[in-house]
Amino acid sequence: MTTDAPRRNEITVELPAPEDAQLRFIGVIHTPWSDRKDCPRQGRADGPECRLVLDPTWVPALAGLEDYAQIEVLYWLDRSRRDLLTQSPRSDGATVGTFALRSPVRPNPIGTSRVDLVRIDGAEVVVRGLDCLDGTPLLDIKPDRCAFSPKAPAKPGVAS
Amino acid sequence: MTTDAPRRNEITVELPAPEDAQLRFIGVIHTPWSDRKDCPRQGRADGPECRLVLDPTWVPALAGLEDYAQIEVLYWLDRSRRDLLTQSPRSDGATVGTFALRSPVRPNPIGTSRVDLVRIDGAEVVVRGLDCLDGTPLLDIKPDRCAFSPKAPAKPGVAS
Repeated sequence: MTTDAPRRNEITVELPAPEDAQLRFIGVIHTPWSDRKDCPRQGRADGPECRLVLDPTWVPALAGLEDYAQIEVLYWLDRSRRDLLTQSPRSDGATVGTFALRSPVRPNPIGTSRVDLVRIDGAEVVVRGLDCLDGTPLLDIKPDRCAFSPKAPAKPGVAS
Repeated sequence: MTTDAPRRNEITVELPAPEDAQLRFIGVIHTPWSDRKDCPRQGRADGPECRLVLDPTWVPALAGLEDYAQIEVLYWLDRSRRDLLTQSPRSDGATVGTFALRSPVRPNPIGTSRVDLVRIDGAEVVVRGLDCLDGTPLLDIKPDRCAFSPKAPAKPGVAS
């Protein structure tokens, strides 16, 4: 956890070490941004190409992903503090609750982005629309929920 | 991790214990579904009300969330195995890669849903559109990315 000082009027909470569940990084994300001040606030479909580089173990799990134009990417915002209850986005003392922001600072700093799939080259998935730092650990890739239709059989009484 | 047997042609991988990052459950989700076979495949806006019950620690972090009609909810699919590289949704031997599915079975079993915010009652956030089991651990709540505009000042050279 970073030790960035809270801003005026931001509220922190004393937390025990987290121990509820553990993540397994499945790769790393390469973006053009190596400093937080350069990252866009939100990814854009016309943004630069970024690369999701999977650990070789997970490459077989990409089979079929090429059918989707838009995918959802989950990543671990490893440089974020986790104890802010309220945050002051403009550093002016005006705060809002952490859950009313998409700030990287959250109790579980997981970023989610919907991105355009550009191409898949072996263990590399090239996308546009990310906003995270170069070197961010990758957690998951899934078809975007808007484009995805469940592939399992329909359930009784549930319209497909 | 569950020990559900893989289905025909599904591929698993031997994994060490995960140790990359730890999650901290911030509450629990209550839904009408106590058995996986009853859960909808995907949440629906006309689905039943479900309740996100926050640990009291985190209630101040809800301030301002009431401004959003649609929110994103992240949760930990704690009954999912994590080692499937390919999966057979119809149990018929035809498989597709885990990253080309929105199955709960994934290396990091994090569910993401976009839901309608119905109301906030103290530590309870009532929503429609979830698809997870009753008792699922809650990881995060954020404004849906489609509705959210960054509250921090614009950055040089980036259109807002």
